[in-house]
Order: sequence, then structure tokens, then C-alpha cells
Amino acid sequence: MTSALASDLSARSPETRFERQLAKILEHATAVFCEKGYENATMRDLSRASGLSLAGLYYYFESKEKLLYLIQKHYFTTVMGQLSERLKDVSDPEERVRTFIQNHLEYFVAHFKAYKVLSHEDDVLQDELGDEIFALKREYYHSCAGLVEALKREKGLKFNSRIAIMGLFGSINWLHTWYNPQVDGDAPSLARQIGDVFLRGIYATSART
Amino acid sequence: MTSALASDLSARSPETRFERQLAKILEHATAVFCEKGYENATMRDLSRASGLSLAGLYYYFESKEKLLYLIQKHYFTTVMGQLSERLKDVSDPEERVRTFIQNHLEYFVAHFKAYKVLSHEDDVLQDELGDEIFALKREYYHSCAGLVEALKREKGLKFNSRIAIMGLFGSINWLHTWYNPQVDGDAPSLARQIGDVFLRGIYATSART
Repeated sequence: MTSALASDLSARSPETRFERQLAKILEHATAVFCEKGYENATMRDLSRASGLSLAGLYYYFESKEKLLYLIQKHYFTTVMGQLSERLKDVSDPEERVRTFIQNHLEYFVAHFKAYKVLSHEDDVLQDELGDEIFALKREYYHSCAGLVEALKREKGLKFNSRIAIMGLFGSINWLHTWYNPQVDGDAPSLARQIGDVFLRGIYATSART
Repeated sequence: MTSALASDLSARSPETRFERQLAKILEHATAVFCEKGYENATMRDLSRASGLSLAGLYYYFESKEKLLYLIQKHYFTTVMGQLSERLKDVSDPEERVRTFIQNHLEYFVAHFKAYKVLSHEDDVLQDELGDEIFALKREYYHSCAGLVEALKREKGLKFNSRIAIMGLFGSINWLHTWYNPQVDGDAPSLARQIGDVFLRGIYATSART
């Protein structure tokens, strides 16, 4: 359950010294925000955790806001990229919804600290940075909504999509407050069980039966 | 969607001037924590909002932690008290689970600011105050778990209770990030729809069918 931000970033972009350093700082900053909370964390804490001088840290980031923005942007972009890749091989509408749930849980269980930061500091960013993250979240919501709508059409189901989808997001986002891999099993097993309740729940609204 | 803490408290306890003042301060503090976040709010903000001098505020509360503690304690205690009252008249196991969902949603939609503070500042309190709130939350979780277990036994259902119940809590607690009464309808309608997906979802695991 450790963050693999450095390897994620380096796999996606040319390996310059600057980029490696950036990825390392984001990984340390995620751990600091997770432990102390964004509001309580100081640039001094971030400098200590990343092993950089304060001046060195400011060379990469002008502010704490920018760090949080880059963390949020990175994780939302990566989980969406990984989802697109996985969906390429899946055509069945139910399996596509299950793929969304499993991808979300696998990714955030593997990056649990980031998942806590993303959930807890959900509405901290303001102005342009906040708008950009909000747009990414909308895109992620719509990627899920599109899959649920396709299934709803195929099966002739009748339910309020927004409430059902937000309910599903609640189930998979609240996880950071209670999930314990020793008790609750791994992400694929969790995804199957949460998917079972959600899918059977919306199937029972079928207009055909 | 305004907090009715003052009237809640006064209805439950003898009306001394001290208690009325206390209830008023808690109501203002809830609004300040909701707007600025707990970490950002200062005793000065709280004094300004409640119309009390700083010295007057310290007369009632020794610290910001104590204020947050009293807010959390008040809302958890009240929602549980209201639930117990409602359950007295309901014997059908499914209706009892639905009563839990509806009570939770009605209460927190009516006290939306408190609901945001309780969700967002979930894990802020430490030591004895934190332990006491954690115990209240466990009690609330177990009141829901008991109702779901009773339904599970009655219908001979098979599912992982902890994952299903935590999934349900996710659905009803994530609400503060998206709920809009104009778009999503009132609390009873929301409770019915969230209850439908959850109940049909677990019913489909019935061992008898």
C-alpha cells in the first residue's frame, strides 16, 4: 500500500533529473499531507520529508497549493488513463461497470495515502487550480456515468442515474475510513462484492421483469 | 437546511441561561467550521460569529477542540436518540433498515452544516475527546449493523455484512459532496432510492432463491 508515484511518472515521461526529482517530492508530499493533513503541513515539513532545502523545494514548487494541485492532477489523470487502457478489452456493459469499480479500488488501495489525501482535501483548492481539478473529477464522474447509462439502456433498467452513481461513488470513496486488507480482503474481492450489491440493486429495477 | 441546534438542546434540557448560550455558540461554531474548515477557524472567528468577546467565549469553552467535540457529541447523540424513538413503532426488519436510512438522511439534510463538519473533521480529535467520539460512532455503526443482521437472518441472505454496511454508510455519508435538494429531491425520496438499491442488492444474495 505504498505510493508508486515516482515509478508511475517515470514510466510515462522522459526521465530527466528534474522530472525524477519532481516525482520524488510529490511522493513525499503525499505522505506528509496524509499524515498531518494539508492545512497543518508546512513547507518546512515538506522540505524535511523530501530531503531538500527550503530553497530547493521552492525551486520546484512556488506554494503548498501547487503541490496539492499536482498530486491531485497526477492521481486523477493516472487512474483515468489506466481505466481507458483496461476498457479497451472489455465490451460487455456489465463487465465495463465492474471494470470501473475494480480499477478504482485497485488503484486507490495501491496508492492508499494519495487516496486519503484526495478524499480529505477534496475541496481545498480554489480559483484556476481548483477549477482544473474539478474538471478532472467531472470527467472521471462522467466516465463512470457513461458506463452505467450504457448498461441501463442495454438491460432496460429504470432508476435515477445520478443518485445511483453518487451512491456507488460514496461506497468506493468512503473506503479510506475503514478498509483493512487483513479483514476485508484484496481490492478485486472488494470490487466484486461492492459491484454485486450495486448491480443486483439496479437490476431489480428492470422494466422487463 | 439550517442547524436547529439551539432548539434541539433546549427541547432536551432545562432552559438555563448558560445552556441557551452554549447551544447558540455551538450553532455558530458549526457554521464557522463548515465555512472555513476546522483547522483554519480561529477562536477570534468563533467569537465574532457568536457575538461574544474572546474572554466570554473562553468562559464557555477552553479550546477549539472542546467545541468540535461538543458539536460531534451533540449531533451523534441526537441522531441516535431520534432513531431509537422511530424504531419503537417499527417491527418489520426491512422497514427497520429503511427507517435507519431515512432517519440518517432526514437528520443530516436538516442539519447540513453539521453533517459537513462531522464528515470533514471526522478524524481531527485525539486522546480522550477523540476516543469518546469514536465510541459514539461505533455505537451508531452497530445500531445500523444490528438492523441489517436481523434482516439478513430473517431472509436467509448471504453477504459480507461489514462490506455491505460500510458501502451503505459510504452512500449516505458521501452525500455532502453532491446533494442538491432542487435536483435530487427531499430526504425521504432519496432514502427510498438509496434503500431500494441497497436492499435489492442484498436480497439478490438470498440463499433461498
